Order: sequence, then C-alpha cells, then structure tokens
Amino acid sequence: MNCVFCKIVDGEIDSTTIYEDDKFRVILDLNPVTKGHALILSKKHYADLYEISDKLAAKAIILAKKMVKMMTEVLRCDGYNVFQNNGAAAGQTIFHFHVHLIPRYKGDQVGVIWEPGSLTEEDKQDILEKISNKLN
Amino acid sequence: MNCVFCKIVDGEIDSTTIYEDDKFRVILDLNPVTKGHALILSKKHYADLYEISDKLAAKAIILAKKMVKMMTEVLRCDGYNVFQNNGAAAGQTIFHFHVHLIPRYKGDQVGVIWEPGSLTEEDKQDILEKISNKLN
Repeated sequence: MNCVFCKIVDGEIDSTTIYEDDKFRVILDLNPVTKGHALILSKKHYADLYEISDKLAAKAIILAKKMVKMMTEVLRCDGYNVFQNNGAAAGQTIFHFHVHLIPRYKGDQVGVIWEPGSLTEEDKQDILEKISNKLN
Repeated sequence: MNCVFCKIVDGEIDSTTIYEDDKFRVILDLNPVTKGHALILSKKHYADLYEISDKLAAKAIILAKKMVKMMTEVLRCDGYNVFQNNGAAAGQTIFHFHVHLIPRYKGDQVGVIWEPGSLTEEDKQDILEKISNKLN
C-alpha cells in the first residue's frame, strides 16, 4: 500500500518521533500550524475513526491526553486543540488514522472558519425523526 | 457553579438531547456549524481533557465513534470532524469538558484557518531537547 503514514511508521520515511509504543508513533508535523504540532499515527493502517476498534480509539485518546499534558509543560503553551478528521469532505488528506495535537499560544493566528448558524425547529425535528427511525 | 453545560446536563436549561447514558449527554449545538453539529458533554463537571480521567476520556472517544457512525447514516453526510478544545487560547468558550462532532458535507464552507509552516531544524532540536530534559 502506498501510504505515507505507513512508511513513516515503518521508518521508510524519516520523521521526528517524539513518542512511540506498540500501537502508535507520535511525530512532529512537517507543516506545523504552531510550534509543536504533532500527529498520533496508528502503527496499523486504518483509514479513520470509522475503521478503528473501540479499544484502539480508547488507547489513542489516553495517549493524546498524556501527550497534551506533557507537551503543555514542555512547550509552555496556553492550550491545545485535539482533533481528528474523517473523510475528504472533513479535510482529511492522508487516509491513515491520525490525531492532530495542536499546541495553542495566546495571540496565535489559528482560527476555525465557521459561521455558526441557528438550530432551526425544522432541522431539529428532522434529525430527531431520522434518529428515531434508525433506532426503531 | 454557574456552568451552562452543568445546567444542560441537569435539565435546568433545555436542550435537544440525541443520546444519554450515565456518563454523558449528547446534544445538538444551538449554533451548529453544519446540520447535525452535536456536543458530547460529560455529566460531571471537568474543565477539559487535562482534568478528566483516562477512563472517562476512553468512554468519550468510544461514544464519539458510535455517534459518528450512527449520525453519518442518519444525516447521510460525507465525513466528520471530531474535535476538542482545551483552554481559552485554543478557542474553548465553555470550560466544561465537551467534544464537538461536526458532520461534513461535500462543498460545505467550513474550513480551518491555518497557515502551515515548516518544521525548522531549530524548532525540532529545541522540542526534542526540552522533551529529553523533561524525561530525564
């Protein structure tokens, strides 16, 4: 499989590894949004959250928590975004499960472009009805 | 404590709940970025990922995975962002642990403002050295 993250995990492509265990490798992103931007990569290839097991998802978030705590001290940053994209429509570009750990610093210029809408009565009823149809 | 999410969890403030168990309540966001934007709220008050236990973090991500799978079918969306902000510098506005589940649709206008930089040799060495100092 021609997957960049598989190659990084296997050491075929060089990376700056800041943590490694039997399930994950954590590397510094080559195109960091902020200083210290890191990625948790699963060692086995899974496309996304839809594909990984509950057990691996749990291990990933526990590792995220551990890294965030450690790196907050290391980097002396002021906060952290932990995020994970699934699907091209969601901005995923490499289809190998990974979690972004983005240290944030007061006054940095990172932002999320979103135009908050309003939860309309129509959407609310539509969603509740569809969930209800699915569950029944 | 004057926490909006505590009040929602307790039912003092109305919300549209799409899932509930003993640890979490999942509600539709009142200012959805896209149709179906939901929030996983912990029932107990914790400020953020730094404060919650490993066990609760694991339960939260397993629930995120379950909701994302279910809601992808319900909403027929094309992908999902799962993200979690910690600290005002990271865009957190309500200091009660929550996870954003944002369904994404091809062509929606949600984006992340970031200017990807380059991982400089200087930053790389600086980070590795600080990690090493911390671990030793």
